[in-house]
Amino acid sequence: MPTKARANLETLYRIFTVPEAPDSTLGAVDQAITADVAGFLQNHIVAMERPLEEIEASFSSVTIPEEPTYVSDYTEFVKENLVAQSVHTASPGFIGHMTSALPYFMLPLTRLMTALNQNTVKVETSKAFTPLERQVLAMLHHLIYRCPDEFYPSWIHNSQAALGAFCSGGTIANTTALWVARNRFFAPDGAFRGIAQEGLARALKHRGVDGIAVLVSERGHYSLGKAADLLGVGRDHLVKVKTAEDNRIDLKALRQECQRLQDQNIRPLALVGIGGTTETGNIDPLEAMADLARELDCHFHVDAAWGGPTLFSDRHRHLLAGIERADSVTIDAHKQLYVPMGAGMVLFRDPTAVSAIEHHAAYILRHGSKDLGSHTLEGSRPGKALLVHAGLSIMGRKGYELLIDLGIERARTFAGMIRQHPDFELTSEPELNILTYRYCPAAIQHLLATAPQAEQARINGLLDQVCQLLQKHQRESGKTFVSRTRLRMSRYGEEITVLRSVLANPLTTDEILTSVLSEQCEIVRQPEIQALLQQVWR
Amino acid sequence: MPTKARANLETLYRIFTVPEAPDSTLGAVDQAITADVAGFLQNHIVAMERPLEEIEASFSSVTIPEEPTYVSDYTEFVKENLVAQSVHTASPGFIGHMTSALPYFMLPLTRLMTALNQNTVKVETSKAFTPLERQVLAMLHHLIYRCPDEFYPSWIHNSQAALGAFCSGGTIANTTALWVARNRFFAPDGAFRGIAQEGLARALKHRGVDGIAVLVSERGHYSLGKAADLLGVGRDHLVKVKTAEDNRIDLKALRQECQRLQDQNIRPLALVGIGGTTETGNIDPLEAMADLARELDCHFHVDAAWGGPTLFSDRHRHLLAGIERADSVTIDAHKQLYVPMGAGMVLFRDPTAVSAIEHHAAYILRHGSKDLGSHTLEGSRPGKALLVHAGLSIMGRKGYELLIDLGIERARTFAGMIRQHPDFELTSEPELNILTYRYCPAAIQHLLATAPQAEQARINGLLDQVCQLLQKHQRESGKTFVSRTRLRMSRYGEEITVLRSVLANPLTTDEILTSVLSEQCEIVRQPEIQALLQQVWR
Repeated sequence: MPTKARANLETLYRIFTVPEAPDSTLGAVDQAITADVAGFLQNHIVAMERPLEEIEASFSSVTIPEEPTYVSDYTEFVKENLVAQSVHTASPGFIGHMTSALPYFMLPLTRLMTALNQNTVKVETSKAFTPLERQVLAMLHHLIYRCPDEFYPSWIHNSQAALGAFCSGGTIANTTALWVARNRFFAPDGAFRGIAQEGLARALKHRGVDGIAVLVSERGHYSLGKAADLLGVGRDHLVKVKTAEDNRIDLKALRQECQRLQDQNIRPLALVGIGGTTETGNIDPLEAMADLARELDCHFHVDAAWGGPTLFSDRHRHLLAGIERADSVTIDAHKQLYVPMGAGMVLFRDPTAVSAIEHHAAYILRHGSKDLGSHTLEGSRPGKALLVHAGLSIMGRKGYELLIDLGIERARTFAGMIRQHPDFELTSEPELNILTYRYCPAAIQHLLATAPQAEQARINGLLDQVCQLLQKHQRESGKTFVSRTRLRMSRYGEEITVLRSVLANPLTTDEILTSVLSEQCEIVRQPEIQALLQQVWR
Repeated sequence: MPTKARANLETLYRIFTVPEAPDSTLGAVDQAITADVAGFLQNHIVAMERPLEEIEASFSSVTIPEEPTYVSDYTEFVKENLVAQSVHTASPGFIGHMTSALPYFMLPLTRLMTALNQNTVKVETSKAFTPLERQVLAMLHHLIYRCPDEFYPSWIHNSQAALGAFCSGGTIANTTALWVARNRFFAPDGAFRGIAQEGLARALKHRGVDGIAVLVSERGHYSLGKAADLLGVGRDHLVKVKTAEDNRIDLKALRQECQRLQDQNIRPLALVGIGGTTETGNIDPLEAMADLARELDCHFHVDAAWGGPTLFSDRHRHLLAGIERADSVTIDAHKQLYVPMGAGMVLFRDPTAVSAIEHHAAYILRHGSKDLGSHTLEGSRPGKALLVHAGLSIMGRKGYELLIDLGIERARTFAGMIRQHPDFELTSEPELNILTYRYCPAAIQHLLATAPQAEQARINGLLDQVCQLLQKHQRESGKTFVSRTRLRMSRYGEEITVLRSVLANPLTTDEILTSVLSEQCEIVRQPEIQALLQQVWR
């Protein structure tokens, strides 16, 4: 072998071998990266002020480098161009999206999980991670359904069944739930071999229906639209039912929509109740929806991606009453279970429900094997269930309860501050730990209260622009962060733009909440925004 | 606040705060975990000998613990019950599945990625990770399609388009590709608002076809069956075309199947070429398939989840000739890009193709935003593109080339060993770095060569049992590991069970390959297996 090729091979072996001492080259780089991260995380700035277009310039070459680079040179690049230009989603001043500080132990355990590099699709590449994942699903199943103790031993490690599916996030969880619902409705029946085999068109013909529909409130997560598209249902048949002022589904409207569909020979396949809407954190009347689903004999799914962990709280659990009647429930681990990004779950009340989506292959997932992959939408998957297991074991129910209670309390505190502030209008009351509001000084609030509809629309249009600019400037200045969305407010009869705050970081203090509002009052003094506000009075 | 509640809160703050010094409690636990992992990885045993049922006993409680536990106690539990009971997928003797040792720098960078906890669904929670991910997709696009330099600047960071989609793995990548193909075929057209909106049943009616079909060889990955089910196509219409002796699709049979479908008014939606079959590593005749797809005016997808990185190799790139004519290509990053589990990609030749699955929401993914989530199947996602970026930057094209060349060379070496060994039969020649073989002593090979079909079937049935037991015992003894699958062999006219070896770990030496075979010769001496072999001669 020529000398150069041999040298290359030796480098390769070195790079694939775990260093024995931390003072070896790779060990030192490892320590430096850990120190840099600690530095970034201890910093409370949300983001460096640098336009996206400028950052893009550092990531614009499309040619894969020919030659290798030193790890240390690369990490210098990463530190400057990536870490420094990231959004500090764990900052206590970042209260705009569903991200938070992480329990510190998640970092070394993620490293452990990565180093083991198990693939939970099959036992042959995961072994102990398979029973661990099944246990985690059972724990969450128990949290939701409270089945008697004697229920679990026959199901928890049963190769023919699954109490749920672990996946990369809520979108896959919701899609899996509706996939199961669809395939169960069109199950094999006599000569009909089921929708999985024969496809949707023949399935509709077999059942003699002209379409299938999924019903959810207008606050439903956008993933349901994707699922309706993917599954061939069509977005037209993801029926978005209007909500009452409290952002919960209007039950009367829901009934009417179901009737309308049935009159058109379209079968309501599933009702989806929301356990914490993404935008406002409200919870649908789950008991009543469960009743209706039973009456219609259709699947009842609860999207509790955000709010599911409210079940940990003795004080607030009652808000989710009825969830135990759902056929399936989505819970995101990377939200209020405080697991790093990329972990979701769907739980099924009936552990045999997943047989509707069962699949096999010759080299893995053989009949009778305990391979988790035979009941999941995804294939190869990392052992992320470890991180949920760690959170539940280390923090315990009481630890999570504290986080839930703290978030709800803090949201109420923030709502109080907004209500008392003369320049802001609370646009949704926090039921959980999410609220919305907007900049709308008291005088304008009074004006709006008595203005005719056309005038209301004109003023709200201006306030929408104020809101949008305010959120943009605050994001760009990088000290604190709230998000924005649009909500239909029945008091105005139209959609308005609002600021949205999610309070899930235990490090967020009342002082930080005060500073968010005062920074916003500062920003609105800008001439551009003042000009818009003056137009209100014209 | 009562003292106990305050103490709880303080613990919570501590657990959510990054330790400043490594000798703090959490810092020490962190170091201990790192040391444990290093210990595990330096160990060359594949798995501890312990039955799954016993391991399950450690993961059987369904009650979430009430009280918190010390991190150090938990990590002790993990070390004993999880790490020690895991499969050492990075062991150089683990040559049965598509796992390998990881380049060491992936570990600290995964930790960095986890600590930053960016969510690439939207710029507001990812910032620099958004352009980074787009760059990675552009690099892979360029690797496959080699578009001229002037092509990329207008697309790479274009909010209206995407050169591909990053996802959790090949299954989502393949599903995304077929989803795009389906939605483009049933695009909005006059009064018809497209399949995404109106659903599959109306779409079929609009185009006047009775069904849609996806065609792939019988070696196609099982994820395509899931995709056909999910998308409403039905598994009946995932047409599995037979392969020739070389495990490549039989083009004549493919043409016949297309004709048969068209005669039934079923539209061939997509042809799927395989760039490295999962079981045997063979590559379909991509040029000829591209010709046929053009003739039929249908989508051409290449599933190069495994073999895509062969493009790095000057010597072997030609094997994938024709891939640049594919409409979409799947490449798994957690396979031959040596990224930890949970990273895949699909690339689209036409950067506007993804508009067929575009979606929006009020709080994110707004029209005109650069949010990556508007064109992905998944929602919230971690910044795993960093790890691909790191691999490409640190190892360079030449580093990956070395890995590819080494794997193929080693597979040829192993094939040579098997061919020369009197007791084994090579059942598929390695085209890439995967091969299959079985235990079948020369005398039995001779017997089979002249035996009538019924006798062949009887003997192969016995050899199947030998193969299954051999693989099981080898797995259980935990020193080395190969997998098994079933392949239809035209020389026997039926399916037989074979051992499968994947050679992608640069630390696997020729000595290890020799030891795999000698361990197998050792195992077959067991009375149970000898009894089966004796039955051959009855």
